[in-house]
Amino acid sequence: MTNLGEFERIEQMLRPLAAGDPGSLNLMDDAALIDVEPGQQIVVTTDTMVDTVHFLAGTPPGSLAAKLLRVNLSDLAAMGARPFAYLLTTALPRNLGDDWLAGFARGLADDQERFSVHLIGGDSVSTSGQLSVGITALGRVPSGQALCRDGARSGHGIYVTGTPGDAVLGLHLLRQKRTHGLLVDDAEYLTGRYQRPTPRLEVGQRLVGIASAAIDISDGLVGDLGHICSASGVAATVVASRLPQSKPAQKLLELNPELTRTALAGGDDYELLFTVAGQNEAGLAAIRAECGVPITRIGAIIAGDTPRILDDAGQEIDGLTGWRHF
Amino acid sequence: MTNLGEFERIEQMLRPLAAGDPGSLNLMDDAALIDVEPGQQIVVTTDTMVDTVHFLAGTPPGSLAAKLLRVNLSDLAAMGARPFAYLLTTALPRNLGDDWLAGFARGLADDQERFSVHLIGGDSVSTSGQLSVGITALGRVPSGQALCRDGARSGHGIYVTGTPGDAVLGLHLLRQKRTHGLLVDDAEYLTGRYQRPTPRLEVGQRLVGIASAAIDISDGLVGDLGHICSASGVAATVVASRLPQSKPAQKLLELNPELTRTALAGGDDYELLFTVAGQNEAGLAAIRAECGVPITRIGAIIAGDTPRILDDAGQEIDGLTGWRHF
Repeated sequence: MTNLGEFERIEQMLRPLAAGDPGSLNLMDDAALIDVEPGQQIVVTTDTMVDTVHFLAGTPPGSLAAKLLRVNLSDLAAMGARPFAYLLTTALPRNLGDDWLAGFARGLADDQERFSVHLIGGDSVSTSGQLSVGITALGRVPSGQALCRDGARSGHGIYVTGTPGDAVLGLHLLRQKRTHGLLVDDAEYLTGRYQRPTPRLEVGQRLVGIASAAIDISDGLVGDLGHICSASGVAATVVASRLPQSKPAQKLLELNPELTRTALAGGDDYELLFTVAGQNEAGLAAIRAECGVPITRIGAIIAGDTPRILDDAGQEIDGLTGWRHF
Repeated sequence: MTNLGEFERIEQMLRPLAAGDPGSLNLMDDAALIDVEPGQQIVVTTDTMVDTVHFLAGTPPGSLAAKLLRVNLSDLAAMGARPFAYLLTTALPRNLGDDWLAGFARGLADDQERFSVHLIGGDSVSTSGQLSVGITALGRVPSGQALCRDGARSGHGIYVTGTPGDAVLGLHLLRQKRTHGLLVDDAEYLTGRYQRPTPRLEVGQRLVGIASAAIDISDGLVGDLGHICSASGVAATVVASRLPQSKPAQKLLELNPELTRTALAGGDDYELLFTVAGQNEAGLAAIRAECGVPITRIGAIIAGDTPRILDDAGQEIDGLTGWRHF
């Protein structure tokens, strides 16, 4: 049970996050208002994170806030949308102190500024169980132009942004509480990629009209490519050695080759995975040149119904069943 | 931890609820799409209900589904909005059987039809703690016309729809597990008012351009009138005896006069509480005549900063601090 005093305390700490959007009605009303320009659609997504299911016990509140907001923004990026607002639902244990909530609000404030979004509403409840926090994020996209999962066709190239695999290696380091022989900077790079993924908003928005299908990598490359394949009614082949790796990931995998499969199967990167038809390769080249984000071709869409990851000998690497909650 | 098998099971049971809105993308994509006509704003609200905090242990899943959807729709009603879609977040204990989820989905299906809304997205997580379910509801309102809380001015009349007080009496009967001398039909009426409140959507939409401020009664008359007063910078007087009572409530209060204060202070009715300026009384009369919902004047807005509930002798009835979670 949250008493009214607690509600007011939470609202007071969150209200400054709503100051930048008049549609929030300063969090004082029953609901929030959203303006829409002609020719736009609204895109809406929601993700909830539960303590010890979706994040490690003891995660600093600012990190949790950043990750929660970013995973939601990543879903908007995968649709080609420009985010502008979000609602926040908190289910907090009664004994949680003000410090925690203040750190959480600071984390949101920092990322609001970074990604040009504002809090416009939400709900605060208390729980005797696990802490959980959820965001519903809202974006805008040109009408009828949103990137979906069902447009991949045989012959389209398969691309990823950035260096997938970093995040799951970072999670591995966090769980093991050791650096596996890595330098501290390299270990921090990898754990940072897990804790604060970068939603590929600019790339996503620029892929509107260029990509035939898109998704963000949350469950792992195989699982998420499988979503595109099943929605589009196609199969895919990806050559594992074409997957780009960051320098810290390379070092960690040289020192610990047994983690190679972990890196391939892991999720939580929030990089974009998308397909492009041949006639749009030139448009993609412009995005690659201008966005400052690595974009790598890793395979191709083929007829069939199951994505396959191949080694350099052309043999399928199986058992990459994708990410499960830890 | 929810494994992928459980996710798929939940999605499969919920997917039929998304069939009526193409913007749901059949729950297969990263996010949902919303169309907006020129001259409209989107209205968005979210409410979460936690087991034993917001509903009694053992509440049937269909009743819970109905109440969750209705309290969210009620927030849209209070803004004058027409609902069209919602997102659903479930945090379910791992040992919950299929029967529960099937009952929950049936409850949603029934009310989707009743209120012309569709599921367009959501998230499913599992919890080792209390079951909780949340909805983010979306509506449309003519641009710039949403009912807010800040327009009440001295001299405006204060009105309620229906018969507030029923729900808290129904909750009292449910908690006590006896009828306090009431006939079964009357007891069922009151418990039904608690379990399945009626969002006053038509009245809310018709109050656009008529009401100067509006809210739905969730916390209790005093608390919710207080929200209007603080947002509008005014005070209010309400005469307790003017509050309309249902016949079953009258009977229960005759048999148990000690519950009178409970009825006055209680929330959970989801009736509308609103204010109207003198020049709009004629418009209100038309709504009253055409909507088939009782609308009763219970007091007036005055200068000051605190709402007061008076008895027939003009003495303040204090201590009506509004509803707290049980």
